[in-house]
Amino acid sequence: MIVTAPRVLERAREIVAPELGRWTNRLSPPLRLVIGYHLGFVRPDGGPASANGGKSVRSALALLSAEAAGSSAETALPGAVAVELVHNFSLLHDDVMDRDRERRHRPTAWTLFGEPSAILAGDALLVLAQRALLEEPSPACVAAAEALSEATARMISGQAADVSFVEDDSVSLERCLRMMSDKTGALLSCAASIGAVLAGGSEDAVRALATYGSHLGVAFQSVDDLLGIWGDPEVTGKPAANDLRERKKSLPVAAALDSGGPGARKLRALLPGDPLGEAEVAEAAALVEHLGGQDRARDIAEGELARCLKALARVPLADPARSELAELARFVIEREF
Amino acid sequence: MIVTAPRVLERAREIVAPELGRWTNRLSPPLRLVIGYHLGFVRPDGGPASANGGKSVRSALALLSAEAAGSSAETALPGAVAVELVHNFSLLHDDVMDRDRERRHRPTAWTLFGEPSAILAGDALLVLAQRALLEEPSPACVAAAEALSEATARMISGQAADVSFVEDDSVSLERCLRMMSDKTGALLSCAASIGAVLAGGSEDAVRALATYGSHLGVAFQSVDDLLGIWGDPEVTGKPAANDLRERKKSLPVAAALDSGGPGARKLRALLPGDPLGEAEVAEAAALVEHLGGQDRARDIAEGELARCLKALARVPLADPARSELAELARFVIEREF
Repeated sequence: MIVTAPRVLERAREIVAPELGRWTNRLSPPLRLVIGYHLGFVRPDGGPASANGGKSVRSALALLSAEAAGSSAETALPGAVAVELVHNFSLLHDDVMDRDRERRHRPTAWTLFGEPSAILAGDALLVLAQRALLEEPSPACVAAAEALSEATARMISGQAADVSFVEDDSVSLERCLRMMSDKTGALLSCAASIGAVLAGGSEDAVRALATYGSHLGVAFQSVDDLLGIWGDPEVTGKPAANDLRERKKSLPVAAALDSGGPGARKLRALLPGDPLGEAEVAEAAALVEHLGGQDRARDIAEGELARCLKALARVPLADPARSELAELARFVIEREF
Repeated sequence: MIVTAPRVLERAREIVAPELGRWTNRLSPPLRLVIGYHLGFVRPDGGPASANGGKSVRSALALLSAEAAGSSAETALPGAVAVELVHNFSLLHDDVMDRDRERRHRPTAWTLFGEPSAILAGDALLVLAQRALLEEPSPACVAAAEALSEATARMISGQAADVSFVEDDSVSLERCLRMMSDKTGALLSCAASIGAVLAGGSEDAVRALATYGSHLGVAFQSVDDLLGIWGDPEVTGKPAANDLRERKKSLPVAAALDSGGPGARKLRALLPGDPLGEAEVAEAAALVEHLGGQDRARDIAEGELARCLKALARVPLADPARSELAELARFVIEREF
């Protein structure tokens, strides 16, 4: 299926970028430079730039979610800004923790400004996100701030589980899926429902949109995990099978380990210890595929996408936002296969 | 002057520790272990411990602040928990950024659990702090959450300034004092007024208590900076003149540089470049003292303490909280001289 890049992503960037600029301009110069660079607003020397600041999926979801609840996209603006800020907080810290040197085809912030500055820049974004929602603390904004705090807590918990899996021999498919639902599903679920919360939408609408976002997150992460092993380095910007090199228990690996039998035992024996050499990485990738890890991850991605789309049909939601949410979900998943 | 350890610190620990436990118990096991260890609740293997979890100065201030505004200490509980969580977030990240291997006479979290786990644990505490205040979002709690967000943003901004000063040749005494007011004053100011905010105290009372906390913070940091150069390694747990070794532009250094003349030029020439060797560290410490940096920092500490105490006299505040706040300020400063 071919899905064109939805115009809703363009629109989100246009609406949200000035607000992101307004918030980050309040920061002191050292933080503003690091964050402005990370967001693609400025060059490392502070000169203006218009680099790729990300796809704005989360802010697009927030805007559509207000419209789906029968309100205007503008209603969702503080929420759209806040989810984008939380997402970028997590990227800044992830790059430090994973020692990733490149993101969006540019050097990561910590490689240019040092680790302390990148950690502090992430911290500052997390605090800004709260401030964006509490600037005019209506009951709806406070409810949105609570929802975002809960989602952020789950995201961090999922990241911590992901880190702990590396040294954990007993990661099951079930635990892996729960980790993915926390790490990626929670914030997408919040993004897809925060607009409805701010618009004062019905509980049913908020719940359906949150369910849509949660399944979208797991589907998205499943595709990411497939690409982390079998993605084209030219496209992903990372070495082939990088997740295996880093001994991550991503979805295909957890599924392969769950298959049991001598193959799974062999894979389990390969993973512990030091980072894998090239030959071992290739052997592990072949073994994960042979044990059905790739097929299982694909099936899960498809199943989660189906559940995601089904959630949109459960309650009355306004069009065209409902169909744009469906299109966006397909785009986010299709783009990388 | 000899000041005994105020019982208010004991009381704060007794009241706040169970609440800290309740919040951190909600975290998933990997985060709970790192945070429980950092707070002194458990050993690195998860077994129970009763290690030194810090002095609880910030939560004590929060409790006293509610009482000073004429309410009960319990009114301040969500605020006392939240400021303690934010403080510990900053300690976890500071230790990673400064590569400090020991805190409170125990190995720091990152040395035991790895850098990613310590970063995530700090992130989790920052989010928990917001949740502690938004659990029952009364207007007073929302106002407290806003105040805490603003203070946290200033604290992070101050830390970023502190980091940027290392490579900055033009740090003046004025910029250094502003950095200290952000880095240390903002959270102490919030802690000292958040109880009054939660108690619905008058604007005048909130402002006076915030002023008290802000000056207390700068006084405290001034003493910390004196100890960072001339403190006894046995007491501080850090090598002698460690701040100079790390080329920090702390208060005595900024004051010495501000003195101008050939001595200041010599000091300026010593500081840039690689970490200093032992002979250079000793030379720099002697130069800072000779240029009056030590005396100036002592004067500033005394002056800030006086302003801090004066703020308590500006508006009617309830006793004994008012006199306990004064005693606590003297204790915090005296303890280290």
